[in-house]
Amino acid sequence: MSDTNSAPEYILKLSAKDQPGVIAGVAGALAGKGCNIKEMAQFSDPESGRMFQRIVFVGNVDEARTALDAVKQQFHADYSIRDASERRKVVLMVSKFDHCLGDLLYRNRIGELNMDVVAIIGNHPKEALNITLIGDTPYHYLPVTKETKPQQEAQIKQIVTETGAELVVLARYMQILSDDLAAFLSHRCINIHHSFLPGFKGAKPYHQAFARGVKMIGATTHYVTADLDEGPIIHQDVETVTHADQPETLVAKGRDVERRVLAEGVRLHLQERTFVIGNKTIVFK
Amino acid sequence: MSDTNSAPEYILKLSAKDQPGVIAGVAGALAGKGCNIKEMAQFSDPESGRMFQRIVFVGNVDEARTALDAVKQQFHADYSIRDASERRKVVLMVSKFDHCLGDLLYRNRIGELNMDVVAIIGNHPKEALNITLIGDTPYHYLPVTKETKPQQEAQIKQIVTETGAELVVLARYMQILSDDLAAFLSHRCINIHHSFLPGFKGAKPYHQAFARGVKMIGATTHYVTADLDEGPIIHQDVETVTHADQPETLVAKGRDVERRVLAEGVRLHLQERTFVIGNKTIVFK
Amino acid sequence: MSDTNSAPEYILKLSAKDQPGVIAGVAGALAGKGCNIKEMAQFSDPESGRMFQRIVFVGNVDEARTALDAVKQQFHADYSIRDASERRKVVLMVSKFDHCLGDLLYRNRIGELNMDVVAIIGNHPKEALNITLIGDTPYHYLPVTKETKPQQEAQIKQIVTETGAELVVLARYMQILSDDLAAFLSHRCINIHHSFLPGFKGAKPYHQAFARGVKMIGATTHYVTADLDEGPIIHQDVETVTHADQPETLVAKGRDVERRVLAEGVRLHLQERTFVIGNKTIVFK
Amino acid sequence: MSDTNSAPEYILKLSAKDQPGVIAGVAGALAGKGCNIKEMAQFSDPESGRMFQRIVFVGNVDEARTALDAVKQQFHADYSIRDASERRKVVLMVSKFDHCLGDLLYRNRIGELNMDVVAIIGNHPKEALNITLIGDTPYHYLPVTKETKPQQEAQIKQIVTETGAELVVLARYMQILSDDLAAFLSHRCINIHHSFLPGFKGAKPYHQAFARGVKMIGATTHYVTADLDEGPIIHQDVETVTHADQPETLVAKGRDVERRVLAEGVRLHLQERTFVIGNKTIVFK
Repeated sequence: MSDTNSAPEYILKLSAKDQPGVIAGVAGALAGKGCNIKEMAQFSDPESGRMFQRIVFVGNVDEARTALDAVKQQFHADYSIRDASERRKVVLMVSKFDHCLGDLLYRNRIGELNMDVVAIIGNHPKEALNITLIGDTPYHYLPVTKETKPQQEAQIKQIVTETGAELVVLARYMQILSDDLAAFLSHRCINIHHSFLPGFKGAKPYHQAFARGVKMIGATTHYVTADLDEGPIIHQDVETVTHADQPETLVAKGRDVERRVLAEGVRLHLQERTFVIGNKTIVFK
Repeated sequence: MSDTNSAPEYILKLSAKDQPGVIAGVAGALAGKGCNIKEMAQFSDPESGRMFQRIVFVGNVDEARTALDAVKQQFHADYSIRDASERRKVVLMVSKFDHCLGDLLYRNRIGELNMDVVAIIGNHPKEALNITLIGDTPYHYLPVTKETKPQQEAQIKQIVTETGAELVVLARYMQILSDDLAAFLSHRCINIHHSFLPGFKGAKPYHQAFARGVKMIGATTHYVTADLDEGPIIHQDVETVTHADQPETLVAKGRDVERRVLAEGVRLHLQERTFVIGNKTIVFK
Repeated sequence: MSDTNSAPEYILKLSAKDQPGVIAGVAGALAGKGCNIKEMAQFSDPESGRMFQRIVFVGNVDEARTALDAVKQQFHADYSIRDASERRKVVLMVSKFDHCLGDLLYRNRIGELNMDVVAIIGNHPKEALNITLIGDTPYHYLPVTKETKPQQEAQIKQIVTETGAELVVLARYMQILSDDLAAFLSHRCINIHHSFLPGFKGAKPYHQAFARGVKMIGATTHYVTADLDEGPIIHQDVETVTHADQPETLVAKGRDVERRVLAEGVRLHLQERTFVIGNKTIVFK
Repeated sequence: MSDTNSAPEYILKLSAKDQPGVIAGVAGALAGKGCNIKEMAQFSDPESGRMFQRIVFVGNVDEARTALDAVKQQFHADYSIRDASERRKVVLMVSKFDHCLGDLLYRNRIGELNMDVVAIIGNHPKEALNITLIGDTPYHYLPVTKETKPQQEAQIKQIVTETGAELVVLARYMQILSDDLAAFLSHRCINIHHSFLPGFKGAKPYHQAFARGVKMIGATTHYVTADLDEGPIIHQDVETVTHADQPETLVAKGRDVERRVLAEGVRLHLQERTFVIGNKTIVFK
């Protein structure tokens, strides 16, 4: 959360081969331009041999970029910088199950999430929803049938492109994306799956959980990749259930886990706290 | 926990087809003999159409039995009664990973669990263990190889039979039971699986969890049936992990979840709080 | 959740001195009228020497009442019966912090809570709220100052009386009730306190938590009694925090705990799952 | 956990006034000596205006010290370096409630904690304990009465001094330290308090919790300071309880929370993950 009384804060994300000098190089580049580091998190991944850094700093961002470009070249690093207060353009997608959508819109309204919702896409009419927070946000009713799927997905692509959305959130969208759309959205789309993955992949996870007699249910938020339910996991949480829970009460309990797990995943992404490496994430909380 | 100042407590477990009059019949039978109900839990299972009851009462148990036999006949019910203070005979089985074994032995020593450990079976020598709480309890070193498995399992059966054990606990035994032994122990054997089932069945679940990049790990305690990792689940719990956790730290974090989940499962069983119906349990906490 | 395909369900709450025969009497009374018990929970409180029962049954409710009146007389019991599907009239009170209010209204709209919101009372104008789910529900703007408090509280009493509300929920109302109003609402009013009581009573609990450096924050929902922050606790939950959390982020994290703890408390009350005894509750989950 | 196949790892803890250039100075000092940073965590505390850093690095530690001394001087920083594999000398203190002691000894034996237990001090004879893991560790039986307290505390001081212990752990020691001993041990002594502080300070917290009717109990591990129950909190956790829990079952449930909360606190301290600032801690997990 940026302090409005002070200078603007910038978030630097950087990754490079793990080697001596990278951190000194980055910190030196920032210090050399008079930038002050407010927060810093770093992880050296033994599996990949790469290091990942997230830095929040204040100071002259243009000069910082110039200095960091030199570091980038020296260490073959990747980096990006954003203004921490910059609102990201986001498209939200929903079915008639709108508890996650309502939760995201409310959190956004009270300033918890740093995003501009540029469009909402639903496969049910706006009137079918229970929530009322949509206001003037463009709502696109794109019902999907086997026949209309290609055209509707083309529409979705167009909306994402035209709005300049950087992130798409599947807030219980409940439609399986085609390989083509999944690839188009890959790594810039967050989904909430209503199970504790990898348990109960696929359809009707609460009914699967009921049939298996588990004592906890969960939810998983992950980046969408071409491989359904196999994308890099950002966040998970669970809730205790008992033998007395029937599929309907599992669904009700699940709504609470889903909305908080999705909101947390979106928050982590918007605050530039996530890195994807292979089918995993690094998350600096 | 029975109150030592008062009359002995008895635990009644009963199940019957769900129909009007069963509860009145049971409660009336007990009241008719002057028995007082201290605790009562009941569940009508819509799936099976059966009802399940657990009652703790004080009073004349022999007369209660007579009266309940009539109820049993009238409603085609099943029932069992135990003295709540009666210690159950238990065989514990272990590998070199002895954190669950040590935990159960300590809880037993301080009176948390109502059991007599009549034998411990390990596939490593007693000297290989880290714990020292075994004392005079017979320890059977039965190393298992592909060739010796049939003989060793025969030994296990014999120990269970000769000791009169009512329960066998696989406290991280880490050997796959043969179908024959699994059937022999079916429903009177509790296992701890070091994953949040049904995720990560089979071997090396923490390595599977690491490979998938999950953000929580878990443990599951279940009754052993012929179907490996598919028995009725008694209890589950989870622990948060991060990208920084390597397989070894997952194993370490897992030990804490495993021991508390297994101890809870054993406690629930010993206190007659579990019913098995199909591949699920009903657990009155 | 009542099954719409079957006969109406009734919830019986009963308490009496703990003595042999009460349960048999109750169960016999119901069975004698052909009523079938679907759910049953019972607790004998050693401290007070009283027993408490919650029973869900189907059958002829009028005949059940007649039979239970005899039981009541015999055992000096108290009892009440409600139709499980009957919606309770509820007044919600709010400040400008409307996350709990919005959550309750949404849960009610999708059928999670069995209530009719007959009035909302706020000490800020409706337009100051972030939520938009109020719709046609009467909203009473009753700003409270030291001077106007007596008149405004008189208004509150009148609204509660005229609407016939059975329950008042302080959904972050943030005003200290006078002793008079607290007594008027005693035991039919649920409050959410934004701390893990009894820690951090009184004002600004998140700032108190920050000052003390705790590693978890919590929320508590309790019945309102004349004794501020000392009423019988219905439900509590917590959330992990770290040194990096400042008062503002504690407030944000707290919103999530508050809304789920309050919603759970209200659900437990509406489903007749709570008994109050002294300054404690018995809660049958 | 240090990788035995690689070079030794060192842990650097550093704090300084928050100002541009410190991180660059530190990272540059290490890089200039060819040291590679494996882990790094940093926190700028807005309240105190100070920054805190924990760095794990490999390389020439003597040269690193020389370079860091210059940084120290330039920025008026405090720093310390330890070999990550170095075992810390620890004194454990216990009453007859030995579940935390047993847990710490077992964790130490299997390599989870990096400590040498140089002495155990108990106010009950060794034979009164349930655990058997003490082995050859010197056990000092120092029963405390009002009269003997000064002498016994003098003994405790002597044991701590003579063994060269760097840390004392009150593993349910259950005696109130005199102001003098508390001051002597200040900030190098970790206590487990069996409540969720600041709730239920002082004696018999589980009985206090029962009397208040809370729905969760907890445990708190904190550094000992002269101010009883007010020292900087390192870690806390909770467990759900119900109306059915009596003081004895709260005590039993509490044992589980206590031992895991204390073990976590000790682990965090031994891995140099804690900083104390005023009456709070900064904990890099």
